[in-house]
Amino acid sequence: MLQKAQANGAELRPHFKTHQSVDVGKWFKSEGITKATVSSVDMALYFANAGWEDITIAFPYNPLEAEAVEQLAKKIKLNMTIVSKAALNHLNQHVRAPLNYFIKVDVGTHRTGVLPGLKDEIQDMGQPLNPEHQLVGLLAHAGHTYQPMTEASAMAVFQQSMKDFKAVSEALGRDDLIISYGDTPSCSILETLPGVHEWRPGNFVFYDIMQEYFNSCSLDQVAVCMACPVVAKHADRNEVVVYGGGVHFSKDFIAPNGQKQFGKVVKLTEQGWESNPIALVDRLSQEHGILKVSDELLNSIEIGDLVGILPVHSCMTADLQGYYVSLAGHKLNKFDKADV
Amino acid sequence: MLQKAQANGAELRPHFKTHQSVDVGKWFKSEGITKATVSSVDMALYFANAGWEDITIAFPYNPLEAEAVEQLAKKIKLNMTIVSKAALNHLNQHVRAPLNYFIKVDVGTHRTGVLPGLKDEIQDMGQPLNPEHQLVGLLAHAGHTYQPMTEASAMAVFQQSMKDFKAVSEALGRDDLIISYGDTPSCSILETLPGVHEWRPGNFVFYDIMQEYFNSCSLDQVAVCMACPVVAKHADRNEVVVYGGGVHFSKDFIAPNGQKQFGKVVKLTEQGWESNPIALVDRLSQEHGILKVSDELLNSIEIGDLVGILPVHSCMTADLQGYYVSLAGHKLNKFDKADV
Repeated sequence: MLQKAQANGAELRPHFKTHQSVDVGKWFKSEGITKATVSSVDMALYFANAGWEDITIAFPYNPLEAEAVEQLAKKIKLNMTIVSKAALNHLNQHVRAPLNYFIKVDVGTHRTGVLPGLKDEIQDMGQPLNPEHQLVGLLAHAGHTYQPMTEASAMAVFQQSMKDFKAVSEALGRDDLIISYGDTPSCSILETLPGVHEWRPGNFVFYDIMQEYFNSCSLDQVAVCMACPVVAKHADRNEVVVYGGGVHFSKDFIAPNGQKQFGKVVKLTEQGWESNPIALVDRLSQEHGILKVSDELLNSIEIGDLVGILPVHSCMTADLQGYYVSLAGHKLNKFDKADV
Repeated sequence: MLQKAQANGAELRPHFKTHQSVDVGKWFKSEGITKATVSSVDMALYFANAGWEDITIAFPYNPLEAEAVEQLAKKIKLNMTIVSKAALNHLNQHVRAPLNYFIKVDVGTHRTGVLPGLKDEIQDMGQPLNPEHQLVGLLAHAGHTYQPMTEASAMAVFQQSMKDFKAVSEALGRDDLIISYGDTPSCSILETLPGVHEWRPGNFVFYDIMQEYFNSCSLDQVAVCMACPVVAKHADRNEVVVYGGGVHFSKDFIAPNGQKQFGKVVKLTEQGWESNPIALVDRLSQEHGILKVSDELLNSIEIGDLVGILPVHSCMTADLQGYYVSLAGHKLNKFDKADV
């Protein structure tokens, strides 16, 4: 991903909300990456404490966190995300520290961000009341790529996004703004993102079966797997129950052809796992995962065995874990929002 | 719930997987309750360390946790859940400490448990190889009540469950077994559960909008609410964005009339909240919650305001939190599996 961004003349500012790990962060640092994206003030603090000095919080500024933002802005080079004039005004008035901000543009996902047609609002968002606060760029997350994509459909989303960035830049009368883009499907499927200065994907660090379903990756690129113990076998319905439920995986699912999948089951090996799925996770309750299995797998599997499960949504699954273990056997630290 | 169980001549052994809190556990203790149910060995250890001395782990025995189970069984009166002869054999051979066990019966949910027709398997499950291990009862979770229920439909599930318990008791040749039952819908909707010795509901401690949808409770009985800050307003589509997403609520939803709901929005007050919903949570991403709101609410709400959200599934939402704050302002401790 770094090579691809650099070949495009862009910087990679990876989103760390997927791994949430200072140890994984070190892998990025060893590649020369010094800028990161996070999804909360607490997560920014966690990485700032580990030495990250240039962080974008890609979540709308929350007035109730003004004090924590001010503390953070005094410590590192902080980039905030602004979605309205009201939010900017609050930030300007209540955070007394130098910081940069990005205007979040709604490029069609309609989650949040300013609509490109709201010229008056946009112009106001370019005029901070606080001289310590600088508008440095426009940021978008094209979340509507979160469905099965082709190169053509990803390109269509990208081209519309660039039109939207252009409209906002013109409303602001600025041609010097950093254009920050980068959901994982767009950055994975497209070879070039002309006009983008900063790539901001996150999920690609692990990928998952949802991204495979979207055509962002192949299954052998999925880099995270949960080892789950088998606790029951039910021959009458070709099902195996594992210790691994909604509190471990989250309840995200994909539904190709209308059939829900909560994970793909793989065979664990000495070196890791074989990426070819041997079964599917059919449903989850709080602690139980129910696998649909072949006769052959049912007969070969025993209670107490471990199976690997590739998660549907690695961001959500990783969020629920206390730490990772690398294939080399190292324990990797993870942010825990419950500790905050 | 305690009064209802007692009026039935039964004991209440509440499931603590919903609240996962030693402080909430004290409320039960103050009512004279000394027996608890949990969903994992780690959670059992957390409550054992807080003085709970009689705990049922209502999740199938996991051979990979034999050592932790042995340590726990040496410390407290531990009840294990057995779903197969293979699991019982492993327990008998690898856990060298006195303990009791329940046979989990599949009363129709088809998640796990032994099918009542498997007489040979059941008879083997009644013959522990270890004289320190005693079969004391039959346990079931009628999870197929997790849909909109009436008193008649809950009674039909209960009556079939009692037939299943009877078949298993007869296969074992035992008439002295504790019959342990109790999903929250059954225990809420039915007034009597004749023949049940132990009620084991958990969710009722908080309830949630899923239980309201199932007819287990009314909305004014929902006892947990998340305060979420408003971070954006989108007048073009009557939407409000709050800080509160899948990592806070989980991704469980209900879909009355096919329309997904990820929570109900309520007005916070000095004393708590008004239970009458003012809006719905339409969708969630990792950190964002998107509310569909009326013109009136859109106009009256401001960025930085707090709204209350009643969760779809309080067990899953509570699992994601670090602690609770009571309406009296007390911080209530919570188990965190990530700490283990």
